[in-house]
Amino acid sequence: MFNIALFGAGRIGQVHAVNIANHKETHLYSVVDPHRASAETLVQKYQAKIQTIREAMSDPDVHGVLIASATDTHADLIELAARHNKTIFCEKPVHLDLERVRQCLATVKECQVPLFVGFNRRYDPQFRRLKTLFNAGMIGKAESLLITSRDPSPPPVEYVRVSGGMFRDMTIHDFDMARFIIGEEPCAIYAQGSNLVDPAIGQAGDIDTAFIVMKFPSGAMATITNSRRSGYGYDQRLELHGEKGLLTAGNIKENSVELWGEEGCLAAKPEHFFLQRYREAYIAEWSHFVDVMAGRAIPETNGIDGEQALYLADKALESLLSGQEIKL
Amino acid sequence: MFNIALFGAGRIGQVHAVNIANHKETHLYSVVDPHRASAETLVQKYQAKIQTIREAMSDPDVHGVLIASATDTHADLIELAARHNKTIFCEKPVHLDLERVRQCLATVKECQVPLFVGFNRRYDPQFRRLKTLFNAGMIGKAESLLITSRDPSPPPVEYVRVSGGMFRDMTIHDFDMARFIIGEEPCAIYAQGSNLVDPAIGQAGDIDTAFIVMKFPSGAMATITNSRRSGYGYDQRLELHGEKGLLTAGNIKENSVELWGEEGCLAAKPEHFFLQRYREAYIAEWSHFVDVMAGRAIPETNGIDGEQALYLADKALESLLSGQEIKL
Amino acid sequence: MFNIALFGAGRIGQVHAVNIANHKETHLYSVVDPHRASAETLVQKYQAKIQTIREAMSDPDVHGVLIASATDTHADLIELAARHNKTIFCEKPVHLDLERVRQCLATVKECQVPLFVGFNRRYDPQFRRLKTLFNAGMIGKAESLLITSRDPSPPPVEYVRVSGGMFRDMTIHDFDMARFIIGEEPCAIYAQGSNLVDPAIGQAGDIDTAFIVMKFPSGAMATITNSRRSGYGYDQRLELHGEKGLLTAGNIKENSVELWGEEGCLAAKPEHFFLQRYREAYIAEWSHFVDVMAGRAIPETNGIDGEQALYLADKALESLLSGQEIKL
Amino acid sequence: MFNIALFGAGRIGQVHAVNIANHKETHLYSVVDPHRASAETLVQKYQAKIQTIREAMSDPDVHGVLIASATDTHADLIELAARHNKTIFCEKPVHLDLERVRQCLATVKECQVPLFVGFNRRYDPQFRRLKTLFNAGMIGKAESLLITSRDPSPPPVEYVRVSGGMFRDMTIHDFDMARFIIGEEPCAIYAQGSNLVDPAIGQAGDIDTAFIVMKFPSGAMATITNSRRSGYGYDQRLELHGEKGLLTAGNIKENSVELWGEEGCLAAKPEHFFLQRYREAYIAEWSHFVDVMAGRAIPETNGIDGEQALYLADKALESLLSGQEIKL
Repeated sequence: MFNIALFGAGRIGQVHAVNIANHKETHLYSVVDPHRASAETLVQKYQAKIQTIREAMSDPDVHGVLIASATDTHADLIELAARHNKTIFCEKPVHLDLERVRQCLATVKECQVPLFVGFNRRYDPQFRRLKTLFNAGMIGKAESLLITSRDPSPPPVEYVRVSGGMFRDMTIHDFDMARFIIGEEPCAIYAQGSNLVDPAIGQAGDIDTAFIVMKFPSGAMATITNSRRSGYGYDQRLELHGEKGLLTAGNIKENSVELWGEEGCLAAKPEHFFLQRYREAYIAEWSHFVDVMAGRAIPETNGIDGEQALYLADKALESLLSGQEIKL
Repeated sequence: MFNIALFGAGRIGQVHAVNIANHKETHLYSVVDPHRASAETLVQKYQAKIQTIREAMSDPDVHGVLIASATDTHADLIELAARHNKTIFCEKPVHLDLERVRQCLATVKECQVPLFVGFNRRYDPQFRRLKTLFNAGMIGKAESLLITSRDPSPPPVEYVRVSGGMFRDMTIHDFDMARFIIGEEPCAIYAQGSNLVDPAIGQAGDIDTAFIVMKFPSGAMATITNSRRSGYGYDQRLELHGEKGLLTAGNIKENSVELWGEEGCLAAKPEHFFLQRYREAYIAEWSHFVDVMAGRAIPETNGIDGEQALYLADKALESLLSGQEIKL
Repeated sequence: MFNIALFGAGRIGQVHAVNIANHKETHLYSVVDPHRASAETLVQKYQAKIQTIREAMSDPDVHGVLIASATDTHADLIELAARHNKTIFCEKPVHLDLERVRQCLATVKECQVPLFVGFNRRYDPQFRRLKTLFNAGMIGKAESLLITSRDPSPPPVEYVRVSGGMFRDMTIHDFDMARFIIGEEPCAIYAQGSNLVDPAIGQAGDIDTAFIVMKFPSGAMATITNSRRSGYGYDQRLELHGEKGLLTAGNIKENSVELWGEEGCLAAKPEHFFLQRYREAYIAEWSHFVDVMAGRAIPETNGIDGEQALYLADKALESLLSGQEIKL
Repeated sequence: MFNIALFGAGRIGQVHAVNIANHKETHLYSVVDPHRASAETLVQKYQAKIQTIREAMSDPDVHGVLIASATDTHADLIELAARHNKTIFCEKPVHLDLERVRQCLATVKECQVPLFVGFNRRYDPQFRRLKTLFNAGMIGKAESLLITSRDPSPPPVEYVRVSGGMFRDMTIHDFDMARFIIGEEPCAIYAQGSNLVDPAIGQAGDIDTAFIVMKFPSGAMATITNSRRSGYGYDQRLELHGEKGLLTAGNIKENSVELWGEEGCLAAKPEHFFLQRYREAYIAEWSHFVDVMAGRAIPETNGIDGEQALYLADKALESLLSGQEIKL
């Protein structure tokens, strides 16, 4: 049984708390959050204890830490945990500044602790299955990858302001997905974007709609289409075209009921948002992290993945601002 | 080039006129219809001539006759054409009275002319493909067949009154389809029905909603579900369950456009009615009939098929009235 | 917190054990099973205790009992629990003999305890949604209901021999579903069946493929199509045709990945069997039972439902054997 | 009745010949083709006559010309027809050289004859319906347009060599589609491409796989994904995301039959190629051209559309070669 200290008791921390508690090899040992009330709620629900950062880090009974706190605390907590020899699960991103990420990863390397970075979508059963069928040669070599990623509705502008921008906040998942599926590092990137959804997002200096094109050394290409608002639920799809055909991973609909009438056939829209769509992915990534703690696996998504995805986000922004394709 | 005399210039006669004219081996030679204006329209459109029954039958330049006139004239016209040695295409049914059908078929046999009975659905590319895949052994032996057949909206009660009843008028196509797909003659039949769509249909002594169950000597079973009104277009589907799996033939939608929004996904309904859905089937059956005229084929659907389908309709009615399964 | 004594630690008992343990208002207090090893496994997993029937029934700390033991023990356990004033959750069927069911329900009535009979499919979110949309008037009055219910593969013949026959064992769920959806008691029933899947089932005196037709006082009709083997997963669908259109509840596919190639598009088959497809239904019915224990609800599916479904199974068998429609 | 002179009796000329002959207001009057045998075939089939270019142009009985000859003859024939005051239908492109296109259009303008350029996809009922629903405000303002356009298999390299390159030959349709759907002229374009399908295409200096991104003055963006080979039929889809939701126009499948078994559900792939998929589009564009000849309409797709689509193809090539976004 591994004891877990959870940093951050907000929305995503609560998702992880359930999975920690339900896994037969892990125990939610403690919760660390400056917002006392949130911590209290989790502590009572799962018979855990409240700890300070210092207590949790220095507690020899804590085997693993799950960092789901505010983005700007991630790198510091990773370094602290590394120095205390904990196995580390950190929500993406490691940090919004690439130099800080590299510094942090150097510390982790020095301390020789496993670091798992939570690119949860890689553990989505649909995307995983597509990747597995691709690896099995079902469509031959990869040629074109289309990633559709649209949120149901835009976040509040306050969130946008501290998010690091759309590419570092939202597209970062898609950059990781492109690397995961194609299995190469891109050699060129181009980004185009607009502020169409909410003028306040534009006033905050960000975009809310984007198209990104990447090219890989093999000649394969990928495109990402993003929007902060779909109007029909959470739109998360992959299309991978290869030599011999196409693999698609579609949305999961809210239900299987259809209404047929004079107007046509009305079917359900995709599941609302990431808490629904990626419920199984969160469980699967936790299961993988338990394997890492138990020494049965090394992190499938690690610091390098975090660094590379952020690097692509930075370069996409550079392309957007310069109107030029960026060679990588 | 075969010259065709068309009996009946109504809705279904017009469908056939187009196909006769478009086929490279057939020419719409003449039109016979007591309703002069309908005949005139077709004659002008296709540079044909108007003939009387007598003229058409005795004209040595007429190679084939297409009987699409009122149901109660079919048997007489078939016999007349048979005696004049014409190749005969007759719309279903041969007659509403089984004894008259048998008498008529005896005459045809005696005259040794080919008689094709227009069970157009057998020539629908979807149903034909299902049958072909079944024959190729894709699902092994047949076990259960589900035939869905629903009209978009009920016919006028005047039509219902002279139709011979729902089983002889509408279900007759489905009886033929069951025989075609399973490839056996049923040994038991049961029918249940209601008058739910239009009270006037009930007052005319008919039903408008029906479930029929048939059993075949091999143990395979079939069910037919009928309604005079679907509310969502023309619903024409097959499901054939076999040892190794399932073959389905679905509806053709009016278009491939979908609208996704807060309410869900709105897609098109099935094509409206038989003129749309079975357009290709009418062309294919005409092509087959041309093969018959040219001596390249014998009728795939002939008088026996007409007789058997009517026999099943009669027995279904007997079951409905008696509340008993009828052994055949 | 309600303490639950679980009778039966087999496959279905294990499903319930998870849900009892996961529900925030219930505790798996004890397990009763003559097969000691099965009981031990559950007891260790959920920190419960082993009890005998007598101990569990007479233990004042047991608030509710969940009967998931062998079918022939259900009625006895219900009566015993009723006399000990426990709230009762019993897996279907109450008993295979209708007289015994009635006797048992009389005892329950006398003791004035709530009895919930586990027709789990009523709690399937898809079927529930269809029912809700129907009740909301989306398609007007019900006209035709089609229930498709096919198992992925047949049970061992040993199971078939003690199952009470296909209608009492398998179709019983569909009889309940027809009553639930239409909201009326049927007034006529007809059944046709075959032994096509496994000759051993026929030798055991049972069928494995069936079509059933029911008529309701409103004129609405329902058909059930059953097979012990689909060849493509667990096939569980509803089609409800009404005055204004059609409501369908389709299968849930194993995944949303498609492979497009020269052969066409290959998509996933339906989820394998009831443990997958009805996972959410089992959770939802347990949640409802907790409401019953807490006095917040009365059983939505109770002894009468158990009795009626069995009655229809008996009458379907009578129809099958007599080849006649049975008036109810 | 309009007499039509058809220039070019090849594959696409034959498509048009059928539609000319079938339209009730047009007559295939003559065929002009240096390849005598092709011309003869059409002439015999439709009772037309063979003419030389000079004869057809100077024949006062020729009301309209349909130019479906080799690409490099289009501009010359257009000018000649314009000077002879014929109503002109020309297959895309007008010419592969933009300057020559402009020169040619100037001549047409001077002669004041209607020129229709055959961007057939605008007349596809699916895309037309999407456009109509968009114009009706169903999804609010346009934000992102995704155009998928993949051929089933690559053309011979001999064709590629004289095609003007992938953008001018294949993507030109998609450039026109983007302009048609969005209803604006793009202000920036970026293209990325690879040679992945056939090395011979690369050796001929062309690409066979491409991603293009365009931005429009309103902020809306479009992406085009092209491949010379899909491996699963002709892939022709649109996705238009707007403020309030999404409109999609999907492929038409070869048939509606599905095979369900242990491996999953096998459904048909999209219709093979443009002759199948755009059959109705060719009929509809001809019907529109007849309206133009009759003075009931002006060309919906004219010389300007031809010029703009070619201009975008040129600029896409400039982007591909320079690795930069091109401002328009």
